Amino acid sequence: MNMHKRMDILFNPKSVAIIGASQNPDKVGHVIMQNYLDMGFSGSIYPVNINADGRILGVKAYRKIGAIDGGVDLAVIAIPAELVPSALEECGRKGVKGAIVVSGGFSEIGRDDLQDRLTEISERYSMPVLGPNCLGVMDLRSRVDTMFLPTFKLDRPKIGGVTFVSQSGAVGSTVLDMISHEGFGLAKFISYGNAAVIDEVDILKYLIDDENTKIVLFYMEGVRRGREFMEIARRFTQIKPIVIAKGGITPEGSKAAHSHTAALAGSAGAYDAVFKQFGLTRANDVDELLYFGKIFDTEARCTGKRVAIITNGGGMAVLATDALYNNGLELASLTKESEKKLKRFMPPIVNVRMPLDMAGDADDIRFKAALDVVSKDPNVDMIMVISLFQTPGADSRVAATLIHYKSETEKPMVVVSPGGNYAQVHNQMMESSGIPVYASPSTAARSLRALLDYSEYVRLTGEIYGSKKRR
Amino acid sequence: MNMHKRMDILFNPKSVAIIGASQNPDKVGHVIMQNYLDMGFSGSIYPVNINADGRILGVKAYRKIGAIDGGVDLAVIAIPAELVPSALEECGRKGVKGAIVVSGGFSEIGRDDLQDRLTEISERYSMPVLGPNCLGVMDLRSRVDTMFLPTFKLDRPKIGGVTFVSQSGAVGSTVLDMISHEGFGLAKFISYGNAAVIDEVDILKYLIDDENTKIVLFYMEGVRRGREFMEIARRFTQIKPIVIAKGGITPEGSKAAHSHTAALAGSAGAYDAVFKQFGLTRANDVDELLYFGKIFDTEARCTGKRVAIITNGGGMAVLATDALYNNGLELASLTKESEKKLKRFMPPIVNVRMPLDMAGDADDIRFKAALDVVSKDPNVDMIMVISLFQTPGADSRVAATLIHYKSETEKPMVVVSPGGNYAQVHNQMMESSGIPVYASPSTAARSLRALLDYSEYVRLTGEIYGSKKRR
Repeated sequence: MNMHKRMDILFNPKSVAIIGASQNPDKVGHVIMQNYLDMGFSGSIYPVNINADGRILGVKAYRKIGAIDGGVDLAVIAIPAELVPSALEECGRKGVKGAIVVSGGFSEIGRDDLQDRLTEISERYSMPVLGPNCLGVMDLRSRVDTMFLPTFKLDRPKIGGVTFVSQSGAVGSTVLDMISHEGFGLAKFISYGNAAVIDEVDILKYLIDDENTKIVLFYMEGVRRGREFMEIARRFTQIKPIVIAKGGITPEGSKAAHSHTAALAGSAGAYDAVFKQFGLTRANDVDELLYFGKIFDTEARCTGKRVAIITNGGGMAVLATDALYNNGLELASLTKESEKKLKRFMPPIVNVRMPLDMAGDADDIRFKAALDVVSKDPNVDMIMVISLFQTPGADSRVAATLIHYKSETEKPMVVVSPGGNYAQVHNQMMESSGIPVYASPSTAARSLRALLDYSEYVRLTGEIYGSKKRR
Repeated sequence: MNMHKRMDILFNPKSVAIIGASQNPDKVGHVIMQNYLDMGFSGSIYPVNINADGRILGVKAYRKIGAIDGGVDLAVIAIPAELVPSALEECGRKGVKGAIVVSGGFSEIGRDDLQDRLTEISERYSMPVLGPNCLGVMDLRSRVDTMFLPTFKLDRPKIGGVTFVSQSGAVGSTVLDMISHEGFGLAKFISYGNAAVIDEVDILKYLIDDENTKIVLFYMEGVRRGREFMEIARRFTQIKPIVIAKGGITPEGSKAAHSHTAALAGSAGAYDAVFKQFGLTRANDVDELLYFGKIFDTEARCTGKRVAIITNGGGMAVLATDALYNNGLELASLTKESEKKLKRFMPPIVNVRMPLDMAGDADDIRFKAALDVVSKDPNVDMIMVISLFQTPGADSRVAATLIHYKSETEKPMVVVSPGGNYAQVHNQMMESSGIPVYASPSTAARSLRALLDYSEYVRLTGEIYGSKKRR
């Protein structure tokens, strides 16, 4: 069956049965049902529990899914593993259109037999199944949230264009928490666990046509269908970027992952070569996943490797120039025309060559003058502004100026702004206006490099998708 | 003269003249004087201003330093560059024991002539001079703070053992802000600017005997006396670690720094070789300066490269194993005895091999059992705990358990805990109890590697200073 075409029911059900719903707040089914209620899910909710008697969380409960009167689009299953196959069978008989099996206790502990039954039932009823052993999905637009983690443990993100897909539930919840904390906007979260049915290939095939998904962040350890994965990845990255943190990329790590991805086993270098060929961006760790996600989320594309550096802190310009060099980027050389213009606006002590150190007393006027010149200079492909908010001249007007130029220029622009509370307040202003902000020149340069590689890939493979900007 | 022996007066003056003190809050001299007052400096404060008339900030002001009745230990000078030499000359005549020249406008803008006069006056009067073009010093124990940046722009740190030295004022204030924000304890901050008199060598010679300084973080672009610097560095690192972020380490960056350090010019690889020879730890950027500073601040030393990984999130264990491998570290193999003990305490689904994934429902009891075994295992040199506070079982009891074992074990221990608000609260608990907490396995592994390299250096050079632990 075309799994990916049926998958949409996981995110947009009109009715949901929660099998394992419970009055007991310690039960996973309780938290999941509470989430559906708290999120303001607009469809019907049917709690199902073999011991049900009356109502669960104020909603009429059923002992069996077959006892529900109307149709059921989605079943979320959170009961002991041994009981899952028969519950899924009942779902099939009832005509349920899709299921999420949250329960663990399948192939991850050697119970391949139980898991194979899920696969078989799914196929027999042409019913897409996510999991088992997963956190399920989150889609803030349709108000679906099957995470069984309370919001005090895990911040929920705002709505946006980033879809995060994770094989591991633990990495999934942690990165989702980081995504929220960093102020990313989320399109969808998909935790697919053991992938008894829906796997990496199905997910990408589904997401390629998902209009809300602008970029995909991915944590994976193994790929079940390597060749098909690379084929869909190749098509996908022509349209939108995929950043993958692949666990088990070293011999030791691979052993730790009990990886079944023989076809892809090898060194980080080998992975990089394969990833590059298919336009995939490889992140080295969860933090890099977010660094790269941040710059891709702007949907900017770049045309070359010449980076202009503008700063109010000379030492940081030196570190930034080192960082460009270490990442194979170049310091831009401004045109004579640009340098002449800069001289008019900068005090005499400022050397108008790159990297442009505007001195510690630079204020918004000086930042504005510099950005005005640099953003129009044909010798500049990308802009790195290092704005130290600790210095006397830097305040919220500088942040506002950077936000203004972010929307003025087509050139990709990142801001480096390390520091404490005062800096953080301004960083949040800028981040929420779509500026990628980094805590060091190195992380900013690595991210610009990732953007350059992806932009060149898209360009070279002949399908240029312009640098549409999204606010 | 033995500059470093006279330097202490910069940090422990009994009386301070602030030359350029002013009623005008926009003036640097105003902010510096306000700082001395706000910090509760216990000595005498003499505002000096050529236009003074009566009192400045409520304190009796003087038109000339010569007019002050008693002796003056330290002069902080914040007046236009042209006027600095004659003011410094007056300080010399008055018998002032040391001076900090905050003012800019010297060699950094080509006025070598003005700067040479400072050097000459300093020598003639045997008067140590810090600067010009610097932020001066901060020493919270003696309540000295010459930073002309208000506390709302730049958080002030708590008292501790980290001394941060910066050539660049901008990097200085930014990293100081990061140090405060990350909860480091500060011994001293020294911004030395153009180094007309006091340079890197003097500073290290002074700090080697400073009991409050347990580790040194350093930002530098050039070294004036390369050979002497390396000689004092070699002696220094036998006793306490130095982490250096060196700007201008690439050909392009070096050009940006207008570096005069021809003797040290070369690739990052060449620097690494030289640094390694003298026991210096090289940080690649300001963020790495803090990552490494964090682990050195524990004063732990390690005896080998075998790292035990304990986690409640399997995917993170895979990433962590990759990170160990990428940093030349090894995953520890527990003894049979340890594995047997672990089996008693872990649920049957947990595989007690390294990396130890205790499953997503691991609580403090399980963390305690694992740490108890691992901390005593002779096959384990270092411990990396990846504690995902997003998971159902992790709460403040887990943090308390980690804090307990930090004080129980002699083995270096780091915690990886990425995430949002709930995680951050626990991270602060742990950090303030002396546990280095990282946001990713990669940054943790890089830091363990830095600790290993330094520990081995100290051991191999035959002067073992035991792993005294400081809370």
